[in-house]
Amino acid sequence: MIIHLKQSVSKEEAAKLAAHSKSFHIVYEGTNVLITGSGVKEVPTSLESATDQFWVFPNDMQLSAKSYMSKKRAVKIGKNTIGGDTMNTLMIAGPCSVESEEQIRQSSELLVKNGLSTLRGGCYKPRTSPYSFQGLGLEGLKLLAKMREEFGLAVITEARDATHIEEIIEYTDVIQVGAKAMYDQGILRACAKTNKPVLIKRGFGSTLQEFVQAAEFVLAGGNENVILCERGLRTFETGTRFTLDLCGVAWLQEYTNLPIVLDPSHAMGYAYGVPSLAKACVAMGIDGLLIEVHPDPKVAKSDASQQLDHAQFEKLLGELQPVANSVGYSII
Amino acid sequence: MIIHLKQSVSKEEAAKLAAHSKSFHIVYEGTNVLITGSGVKEVPTSLESATDQFWVFPNDMQLSAKSYMSKKRAVKIGKNTIGGDTMNTLMIAGPCSVESEEQIRQSSELLVKNGLSTLRGGCYKPRTSPYSFQGLGLEGLKLLAKMREEFGLAVITEARDATHIEEIIEYTDVIQVGAKAMYDQGILRACAKTNKPVLIKRGFGSTLQEFVQAAEFVLAGGNENVILCERGLRTFETGTRFTLDLCGVAWLQEYTNLPIVLDPSHAMGYAYGVPSLAKACVAMGIDGLLIEVHPDPKVAKSDASQQLDHAQFEKLLGELQPVANSVGYSII
Amino acid sequence: MIIHLKQSVSKEEAAKLAAHSKSFHIVYEGTNVLITGSGVKEVPTSLESATDQFWVFPNDMQLSAKSYMSKKRAVKIGKNTIGGDTMNTLMIAGPCSVESEEQIRQSSELLVKNGLSTLRGGCYKPRTSPYSFQGLGLEGLKLLAKMREEFGLAVITEARDATHIEEIIEYTDVIQVGAKAMYDQGILRACAKTNKPVLIKRGFGSTLQEFVQAAEFVLAGGNENVILCERGLRTFETGTRFTLDLCGVAWLQEYTNLPIVLDPSHAMGYAYGVPSLAKACVAMGIDGLLIEVHPDPKVAKSDASQQLDHAQFEKLLGELQPVANSVGYSII
Amino acid sequence: MIIHLKQSVSKEEAAKLAAHSKSFHIVYEGTNVLITGSGVKEVPTSLESATDQFWVFPNDMQLSAKSYMSKKRAVKIGKNTIGGDTMNTLMIAGPCSVESEEQIRQSSELLVKNGLSTLRGGCYKPRTSPYSFQGLGLEGLKLLAKMREEFGLAVITEARDATHIEEIIEYTDVIQVGAKAMYDQGILRACAKTNKPVLIKRGFGSTLQEFVQAAEFVLAGGNENVILCERGLRTFETGTRFTLDLCGVAWLQEYTNLPIVLDPSHAMGYAYGVPSLAKACVAMGIDGLLIEVHPDPKVAKSDASQQLDHAQFEKLLGELQPVANSVGYSII
Repeated sequence: MIIHLKQSVSKEEAAKLAAHSKSFHIVYEGTNVLITGSGVKEVPTSLESATDQFWVFPNDMQLSAKSYMSKKRAVKIGKNTIGGDTMNTLMIAGPCSVESEEQIRQSSELLVKNGLSTLRGGCYKPRTSPYSFQGLGLEGLKLLAKMREEFGLAVITEARDATHIEEIIEYTDVIQVGAKAMYDQGILRACAKTNKPVLIKRGFGSTLQEFVQAAEFVLAGGNENVILCERGLRTFETGTRFTLDLCGVAWLQEYTNLPIVLDPSHAMGYAYGVPSLAKACVAMGIDGLLIEVHPDPKVAKSDASQQLDHAQFEKLLGELQPVANSVGYSII
Repeated sequence: MIIHLKQSVSKEEAAKLAAHSKSFHIVYEGTNVLITGSGVKEVPTSLESATDQFWVFPNDMQLSAKSYMSKKRAVKIGKNTIGGDTMNTLMIAGPCSVESEEQIRQSSELLVKNGLSTLRGGCYKPRTSPYSFQGLGLEGLKLLAKMREEFGLAVITEARDATHIEEIIEYTDVIQVGAKAMYDQGILRACAKTNKPVLIKRGFGSTLQEFVQAAEFVLAGGNENVILCERGLRTFETGTRFTLDLCGVAWLQEYTNLPIVLDPSHAMGYAYGVPSLAKACVAMGIDGLLIEVHPDPKVAKSDASQQLDHAQFEKLLGELQPVANSVGYSII
Repeated sequence: MIIHLKQSVSKEEAAKLAAHSKSFHIVYEGTNVLITGSGVKEVPTSLESATDQFWVFPNDMQLSAKSYMSKKRAVKIGKNTIGGDTMNTLMIAGPCSVESEEQIRQSSELLVKNGLSTLRGGCYKPRTSPYSFQGLGLEGLKLLAKMREEFGLAVITEARDATHIEEIIEYTDVIQVGAKAMYDQGILRACAKTNKPVLIKRGFGSTLQEFVQAAEFVLAGGNENVILCERGLRTFETGTRFTLDLCGVAWLQEYTNLPIVLDPSHAMGYAYGVPSLAKACVAMGIDGLLIEVHPDPKVAKSDASQQLDHAQFEKLLGELQPVANSVGYSII
Repeated sequence: MIIHLKQSVSKEEAAKLAAHSKSFHIVYEGTNVLITGSGVKEVPTSLESATDQFWVFPNDMQLSAKSYMSKKRAVKIGKNTIGGDTMNTLMIAGPCSVESEEQIRQSSELLVKNGLSTLRGGCYKPRTSPYSFQGLGLEGLKLLAKMREEFGLAVITEARDATHIEEIIEYTDVIQVGAKAMYDQGILRACAKTNKPVLIKRGFGSTLQEFVQAAEFVLAGGNENVILCERGLRTFETGTRFTLDLCGVAWLQEYTNLPIVLDPSHAMGYAYGVPSLAKACVAMGIDGLLIEVHPDPKVAKSDASQQLDHAQFEKLLGELQPVANSVGYSII
């Protein structure tokens, strides 16, 4: 249940009321909004006179629910805004991993040349084997920061586990919670304490409800800048790497108020399918797209098969704009 | 392996050569094409001098493989053609089940009013419970045939099992092999002996390779008019009815030469998501779309929740054409 | 809903009452039991005075439900009985496919030598490729019948589709409805009209409820000799061929009154894991086990990797009996 | 590749050799074993003369592979040992969550009364909603430690994320890496630096190979005391909570050298199925069993439906011993 207390109730009084009614806690620094689990279906008597408006929910999707806030939330990323009324589809592109200054500069130049503004690149790679390339770590974060300064790009990179989340928060413009870390409360609770945008990737074995509840950890902690990212489920089909769940995207659009970004590169796992899938994503009217592109995919240190080369990327970009326009959106 | 014998080899000689080399059989009435399992990687000595061209394959996707025939096959449905160079996306619409003459006439009028030509409607329903509505059977087929005559529509309906496949072949323009019947060799082999178009739906638990191999049963039996239809996988996600596999569609576009139709209605299971998903499908550049629409979905005898009403359908149609155009296709 | 009419109500009167109350139909030739869909929750007024006892159900698992009949049903297979109070675990063994008289005789001799009585062997193989070995068909059925006569074995083989179901019913002692045919109403309805035992395999993409409802087609049609067979789900895991669902078996034991047979051979897909899995199955207190065994697995025409050789089978048999005994059962 | 250098090569020389041949690193403090990714298939020339024995692998399952070490590893837990030649099946039991001193004492007394020695209980719960009970945290760890002192029990609890892994290592006898944390390198790398046993639960969406590679992170870091725990996959079946993958267990027994513990409670999700499933697990010849038992399951703060009560637990224990014995094992 969410309760908006009356305007006349001060933040301090709100805190006292919440403390009384044990299961409630205040959210949003400086507000007088109370929230508790969805099991609570009635306003406690002690809060009645102070209550302005309240919402009950069938499950623990609360702050993220359209039934609470019908308008899509807006999130600012660098100079751009997605969600809200913007009708923007933000193209977030770059290599799977930051490998070297030379490589990440080439990626940055590709973006700038094409009027794009948001660079992705992994520094802490969540590899499943201890014997694979694990990413450049802090050195990679510093390279991303350098690109931000040189090219005015917003940068996004992934937190692998809670041990380096503070570094990620410090160096990036958007914190990416990786699919394998979606349940990581160490990461989610740290993200809740910053105001930087947080892009949460859906775990490949996670239900839609669990996915949105991960966002709820961040929202309930006070950070409203949350973006959902679908990147493919693990199913029995092995011809492609994962199965992008666009039915799930339709569900998210119906029931949540959060901006949605899609990642066809990881879902497909093969460059040949990325353009066709990316068009499908954009036609749904989405807030962003994550595309992996590498100056020379053949020599990439991770996920070589799914990264587009620069020519393929530019061709795709030209084809995507008309699709976005056909549903009233613009690729930015 | 597929072998094209020299032009000079007569059909009769081809049959003799095939008989000699036990594992080969002739396909395509009136041709001299030989085909065998993909395990055979070399032309048998006895066939060498008669061979014009041959293809080896990594698996039993052979006649359907792009590596055999790089151009997409064209299939004629009523007055229209899909596949080939047509850039047509055929809208196939109608109710889940044929319920009455009044109902199916309303559906037919909706199509005609909107310049559409292809009517769907189930007569033998593959219900999972013996206590549910099982469809009108032959009576339903006759109603569909009546609509064809009255309105000049092409009609498509589903074969549930092999016991009524002959009726289906007789009464319809396109034979639909249902998802639950995808492995049914009784149906597939009967479809191979007609020249009517066959739309094969992917089983919700079937791999892409098994799916295409079902088509191979029909192709290898001599019927080249095969269409593939993706309609959603069964995954752990229960928020939506199934998970539409658009990664799989990208795979099919890359590796097969068959036209592809998508069914967002069954995949989603809820009307609210069908428009958004249908746009995603169309943006991939596909050959057709199956949409369930009912004059009054609330009273539908099957799949009530996923059928659009007439107003929703017409709104969707208006939105889909620009998306199709943005990728060079036209909804017909 | 199931209604037991009063003893005084004749079969003919029952038929009339059922006809009146449209949605009811009589089951079991010669009884006065009425049954309808589970949506009906109250006895119709017109039937009240004739009703002795009635049951309502949350879903269409009705005749198969423990809440209707708490005792496990007994099914006679050849000279043996499983289910009921028997505490028998029937070992059903034999090759994946009947390949030749020599081969199936060796299998029969193996059974007889080990005091076993039930022979399996596929004749119509539900292969996913048209270019694979498709089974010996009717010739195979005749070989199985020959083994029955020579060795006094009960034989079981699979119906692939509805086109040959009559042959299967004629030649075998137990009709196997294959996993790929679980939804095939042509087969299920034919099975309902005989009194021979029917072993229904769960589709690898089918829910437990759909599985039991397939049995319901046979039960509701009047054949009470139904056996359920779990043989593995298709999941994302590809290290093994399928994933045997023993949680599902616990569910079936809790909610249904049908005997349960397990097939670790198909689930595992590799001979090395069959003994260990078979012990797990037997420890659950089950009614039967399907094990694939071949005189020379290396040359088997289908599923070579999962078939045990004769020595491995005999070793397994020796190890299984103590496990069965530890839970109060006997392998027969 | 794993290389055992000659005995004569000192630890220091080994370090130098490894440094030279960039991709190698030394494992096991105080040994001269070198290890690198499985992509390396030949001993580097520079190491040839120093090499005693070497192993190449098809994938990154190396230290855990039976092809490297054919004998199952032994792990000491409190006073007991599992794995190796012991033929012990360790019963690990206790509540889902530590809720109070009174509750965990009752659980401890139950174990002692039944001659058992290993207590489980969650302190940091990996809940998917921020509004659910999150566990007692450090307070819970201290209660477990108290039970260890009072009753001489070994205790095991779960690390939810990397933020509290040091506490977990300090307070427990066995560190449990939860299913949702299986990919958490922050946790795995911390576990590699202790010598305490680590029980890694398989993620419900994780492949067998990824599962074993999580163990490889710990092994390669120098901690050989790793135990694998299968606890159910997430599949399309919703009648049970998860699908216990016993095919996967057969695979692990064939290919790895690590002890295996099974968790039927989480897999099933319902107490009614736990006894039957537990017997299946034990019949496979496994090294341990995790069973959730609560003094009063109805009031449990988490996973109420799947916990046995004390009477059910004692009944199960009595039934399990004969099953274990039938395959040569003993429940301890």
